[in-house]
Amino acid sequence: MNEFDLIARLTRSLPGNDTVVTGAGDDCAILDIGLPDRLLLFKTDAVVQGIHFKDDAPPEKVGHKALGRCLSDIAAMAGKPCAALITLALPRDFDVKFIEGVYRGMNALAQRYAVAIAGGETTTNPERLLISVALIGFAPRGKALLRSGAKAGDALFVTGELGGSLSGKHLDFEPRLAEAQWLAEHFSIHSMLDLSDGLAGDLRHVLKASKVGAELLSDAIPASRQARLNARAESAAKPPLLAALTDGEDFELLFTVASRDAVPLLDAWKKKFPKLRLSCIGKITSGEGITIRDKQGVRPLTAHGYAHFS
Amino acid sequence: MNEFDLIARLTRSLPGNDTVVTGAGDDCAILDIGLPDRLLLFKTDAVVQGIHFKDDAPPEKVGHKALGRCLSDIAAMAGKPCAALITLALPRDFDVKFIEGVYRGMNALAQRYAVAIAGGETTTNPERLLISVALIGFAPRGKALLRSGAKAGDALFVTGELGGSLSGKHLDFEPRLAEAQWLAEHFSIHSMLDLSDGLAGDLRHVLKASKVGAELLSDAIPASRQARLNARAESAAKPPLLAALTDGEDFELLFTVASRDAVPLLDAWKKKFPKLRLSCIGKITSGEGITIRDKQGVRPLTAHGYAHFS
Repeated sequence: MNEFDLIARLTRSLPGNDTVVTGAGDDCAILDIGLPDRLLLFKTDAVVQGIHFKDDAPPEKVGHKALGRCLSDIAAMAGKPCAALITLALPRDFDVKFIEGVYRGMNALAQRYAVAIAGGETTTNPERLLISVALIGFAPRGKALLRSGAKAGDALFVTGELGGSLSGKHLDFEPRLAEAQWLAEHFSIHSMLDLSDGLAGDLRHVLKASKVGAELLSDAIPASRQARLNARAESAAKPPLLAALTDGEDFELLFTVASRDAVPLLDAWKKKFPKLRLSCIGKITSGEGITIRDKQGVRPLTAHGYAHFS
Repeated sequence: MNEFDLIARLTRSLPGNDTVVTGAGDDCAILDIGLPDRLLLFKTDAVVQGIHFKDDAPPEKVGHKALGRCLSDIAAMAGKPCAALITLALPRDFDVKFIEGVYRGMNALAQRYAVAIAGGETTTNPERLLISVALIGFAPRGKALLRSGAKAGDALFVTGELGGSLSGKHLDFEPRLAEAQWLAEHFSIHSMLDLSDGLAGDLRHVLKASKVGAELLSDAIPASRQARLNARAESAAKPPLLAALTDGEDFELLFTVASRDAVPLLDAWKKKFPKLRLSCIGKITSGEGITIRDKQGVRPLTAHGYAHFS
């Protein structure tokens, strides 16, 4: 049983209450706790030694990644992060200096976005370090962006460049908080998420939640320089396009808007964020699943984003 | 370096913001997020296979414990829990039926207290199951009970019976939510926490936060039937009083009130909660540390509650 099957089974009948606006299945939970103008966003995410970072990763970057992943999920809903709690599960032989480095990385990122680290907990996980971050944030009432709003005909956009993140970017990506808030403020964004499992896999979450399909334009998918370097350096490596479609941990935004908004959005983006590439990579269709269009024509995309275990 | 030293070092300079009312160092973080009548309580807690539960523990009870520990911390502040997220870190060979049992236990407890389980996350922790729960709740503005309010002369109370919890109670304790809310509503409680590391160790947290000392009455400390049974069954076991002072995972409430409120509180308690013992176990002093009074006189208490690692 893979990760997604297990989650589907466990989330079939979770207890709710009248605060829950959006429960399991989106980037964050959304709760209506009685604030007149805002909804609460609630998210947890964990990084595990040997799974999400190698033993020799710089501790500051491990801390950056641990908090950054949660911030990226708040960004994916166009929210504003507020406060985090940190759960440290420490191996028996943990290195105090490493843990202090982890905190330096987390603290620096938290400060940059005015996020409080309001406490947490330490416990024991004998074989390896695990860092779980719980984060709350806010979105203006009626403005949180869900996975479920994509409509046939929408233009499909992605920020930045994709693939090859595990060569380094996964440890020092910048959560797209400013970009997402700007998008939600200036355009009618229909759906959004952050890319953590790979474009193909994550796009399927949007399509499933929105009951639509998508057609990607092969030439428009922004493979990263790293993905191209990897492909050149090793013949067994994924071709850049496949890396851009299936590598995980890009932490870029994937979103859809009505096609009439696509050009104005691109123009405004270039003025506002001249250093960050924005690509229109295809469109939402009324079909099912993903197809990809290249010079040879249109074919179904069968490659998946990776699941954590299978 | 033990758990508490590490926490002290890491929490010396955490980033804050103007929402933080109480950060690291109490049962929950307290955040002022702009609700006119309430403050937000925020808590995370994890249970780890082989540390907090044995491999043969019934999965429903593991789930109960995982959520119950967080609920107990909300109770410790006289709060009302609202919504939880569950982080499951799964071993490579995890058993789907076991995980479903864990969720049955969590869901049942959540339902009893109208807590929503609003999602969460799965990840991999190859060697063992780890379940981290993040919980938000609320306390009426100005009514959250801290560790830092104990005053010299206060009477010191504890609910239930202490010691021997690891023989079973640690897996099916009831978080004292109703009792704590009733206490906060009807009496001026000066300080409160929930007992997780053992009476002696946890009381020291109150004393340190409040800058006071305590004198315990040996005969008044309610050792549990289980602690007495354990002592009788095995000569190497702790005597019941020592078990009551130092065993962890009791999840009872420890609180202080002005001495003039002690008798009215005991009387009202007996009417409201006739089945749950409440004991006045001593008083807060202007000294430092803990002393214990028995027939031989008064002596300093050197036994500690356990730290998770040392």
